[in-house]
Amino acid sequence: VTQAGIRESWNNLSPDEQLEQFRQMPFAQAQRLFFELPSRDQSELLLSMSPEESLLWMRALAPDDAADVIQEAPEQDRDKLLSCLDTISRNEVAGLLAYREDVAGGLMSPRFSTLRADMTVAQALAYLRQQSREHVETVYYVYVVDADNVLIGVTSLRDLFAAAPEEPIQAVMFTDFVKATEDMDQEKLSRLFAEHDLLAVPVVDAQGKIRGIVTIDDIVDVVQEEATEDIQKMGGTEALEAPFLEIDLLEMIRKRAGWLVLLFISEMLTANAMSQYEGEIARAVVLAVFVPLIISSGGNSGSQASTLVVRAMALGEVHLRDWSKVLRRELVAGLALGCIIGSLGLLRIIIWQLFFPGTYGPHVTQVATTVGASLVCIVLWGGISGSMLPFVLRRVGFDPASASAPFVATLVDVTGLVIYFTLASFILRGTLL
Amino acid sequence: VTQAGIRESWNNLSPDEQLEQFRQMPFAQAQRLFFELPSRDQSELLLSMSPEESLLWMRALAPDDAADVIQEAPEQDRDKLLSCLDTISRNEVAGLLAYREDVAGGLMSPRFSTLRADMTVAQALAYLRQQSREHVETVYYVYVVDADNVLIGVTSLRDLFAAAPEEPIQAVMFTDFVKATEDMDQEKLSRLFAEHDLLAVPVVDAQGKIRGIVTIDDIVDVVQEEATEDIQKMGGTEALEAPFLEIDLLEMIRKRAGWLVLLFISEMLTANAMSQYEGEIARAVVLAVFVPLIISSGGNSGSQASTLVVRAMALGEVHLRDWSKVLRRELVAGLALGCIIGSLGLLRIIIWQLFFPGTYGPHVTQVATTVGASLVCIVLWGGISGSMLPFVLRRVGFDPASASAPFVATLVDVTGLVIYFTLASFILRGTLL
Repeated sequence: VTQAGIRESWNNLSPDEQLEQFRQMPFAQAQRLFFELPSRDQSELLLSMSPEESLLWMRALAPDDAADVIQEAPEQDRDKLLSCLDTISRNEVAGLLAYREDVAGGLMSPRFSTLRADMTVAQALAYLRQQSREHVETVYYVYVVDADNVLIGVTSLRDLFAAAPEEPIQAVMFTDFVKATEDMDQEKLSRLFAEHDLLAVPVVDAQGKIRGIVTIDDIVDVVQEEATEDIQKMGGTEALEAPFLEIDLLEMIRKRAGWLVLLFISEMLTANAMSQYEGEIARAVVLAVFVPLIISSGGNSGSQASTLVVRAMALGEVHLRDWSKVLRRELVAGLALGCIIGSLGLLRIIIWQLFFPGTYGPHVTQVATTVGASLVCIVLWGGISGSMLPFVLRRVGFDPASASAPFVATLVDVTGLVIYFTLASFILRGTLL
Repeated sequence: VTQAGIRESWNNLSPDEQLEQFRQMPFAQAQRLFFELPSRDQSELLLSMSPEESLLWMRALAPDDAADVIQEAPEQDRDKLLSCLDTISRNEVAGLLAYREDVAGGLMSPRFSTLRADMTVAQALAYLRQQSREHVETVYYVYVVDADNVLIGVTSLRDLFAAAPEEPIQAVMFTDFVKATEDMDQEKLSRLFAEHDLLAVPVVDAQGKIRGIVTIDDIVDVVQEEATEDIQKMGGTEALEAPFLEIDLLEMIRKRAGWLVLLFISEMLTANAMSQYEGEIARAVVLAVFVPLIISSGGNSGSQASTLVVRAMALGEVHLRDWSKVLRRELVAGLALGCIIGSLGLLRIIIWQLFFPGTYGPHVTQVATTVGASLVCIVLWGGISGSMLPFVLRRVGFDPASASAPFVATLVDVTGLVIYFTLASFILRGTLL
């Protein structure tokens, strides 16, 4: 049985069976499994154990992992887990818990290796060899500090390895290195890793003193998590913040109902708009026939534009100042797409008229013109509002990912109806209306 | 000026200005900037250089990075870049180019350190020290192979460092390690990294021989890229595969037009459905008033459900076999959400009737019942079709992310109209209809 196989079958067990199986595993296997579990699962397992067992396993965790486990536990169980740790670790973990989970301070490990600039490479290697037997997160990058613990340089084990033993550390260290502040947002932090291809980033406080390091394996999780949150918001729901099949059903309904209700209330405006045009519809029922087709085309075009802009913002490709550039491009793209869709709409009515004469009444040309012209305007309008909404949201301090496909569609539905019936009353005046 | 500042101002220059500025930088700064650029930008810069310059910079790249740069270049310029390399590197790079970009083989570096199991730790460290002066991608993990180059174990620099110098390698190596095959999909590969918290994964061929290693910094890019593709598909457009502001406008229009046209053609069915009910609408224009409200509610509920399921599938939380579990949960959630929205719809009509008597005619109770009941059915139906569509798509071999918000909305629009008018003809028979 491979390690992946063990994980797979473990995941399919009930919590009670998991604990039972965990207790029966050879110790080395149990240890490996435990360290590979996500914090949420570690937390559940620890809380199902006897106090003696959870003491053992909590103490085996590195401080940043222990902090994650505690954050995943229900409020009332957190002290129980924290009390498993020895005094030094408890203080370290309590320090980490003071940071928000989604900033550099909440992601960092407080255990790392530091060197002084005036050591020789040989001294440094001897010191690191001793350190690596203890509980230090990684010895890949090594940080150089002055007497006040201010970070002044970075070097790597590999560079030390390749350098002459008698060289001083300051000759092999970089002084122009990437660092993060304690309160740096995890999304910004992950862009830092991506841009500079780093394995770890040191976190410094306002005085420039090193407080911890964030390693890239934590960043992979951050990137997945941020993408998931954005995707869920863009689908018109609150971020679930838990695996889909594991989240409590009531909780999921709550997270979906909020947006669904808000969208429904906004969409009620379409009923008002339609009521305004009841007279027109009564005189020309054929107009009502094309309402779903027309408003959905605006929604689709808007959904495309908002999705592209929101993602580009999240990746740092588009900034607030780029709004006019995006608008110019969207004017061209929206008009082109509008002409394609408008022609298709026109064609659809003409072809139908050829095969089923009379379907759309005696004024089919005017109806076709109305539908075609409305489609051009509404697809263009959808593109413009979809691409500009994320900028407006970000400008007023909201998450641009809230510019979800359903939100944009709702926005465009109401205005789309006004555009359609206004064009209709111009083009059909004197014939149908 | 910091490194980040240099990158920022560099990004704002035109290609000609970038080359000019690059030539005027101190060499160390140019080198650092060059290695930090994304492959696409490296490729553009290299192609704008003189042959002597591009020779120098191409040769500075590691083989897997060189392969990426070549893959980013236009078809006709690839040989030019490949010919810059020396014979050994050219063969390595050509080998990598034979793999698809999105599988383990296309992501791996062919340069890594291997050891034999019968070496001592001291011998291994001496050998690695010499290797680290050459062009080896990473010396963090070290791979142990037999005489046929078959991978038999893995150890880390840190473990070697902490071990007694006279111990044999086989005493400090892991034999139960995670590995990837050459054709493993990058999405699966990135899950492997996340599950096992790894910094690198060895890639082996069918005989178990080690062919290369994939490092975690490449995986961060993969995770971002896969999320971007999924988000774009879920927004109802083809994946752009280029930064939003940089992609050619015509190319973007083409990528959006395909889905927009397909959705428009499917949405045409709503015009057919509406035509079927023209008689009903003529007799009760009030029915048309609620059409946008009703069909959009189904679309919103469907968009939520499909988004959640598609993302859960991409994260490996939901598999094909889970469809019935998801369906059961969605039946409950959809019904609950349907009741909330249905009551709101009912309430809206009743309140309007109180303040503006006569808006919805003499049979307002029946109209309100029709709208309320339709909303319950359609929100439930949206949730069911939105959550099941990704399973259907995956089952028949399509990307579940194609179950975009607009696609689900279109699907639900047509069926929503049928549900609405069918319920109306039951409830309003004898009064309005």
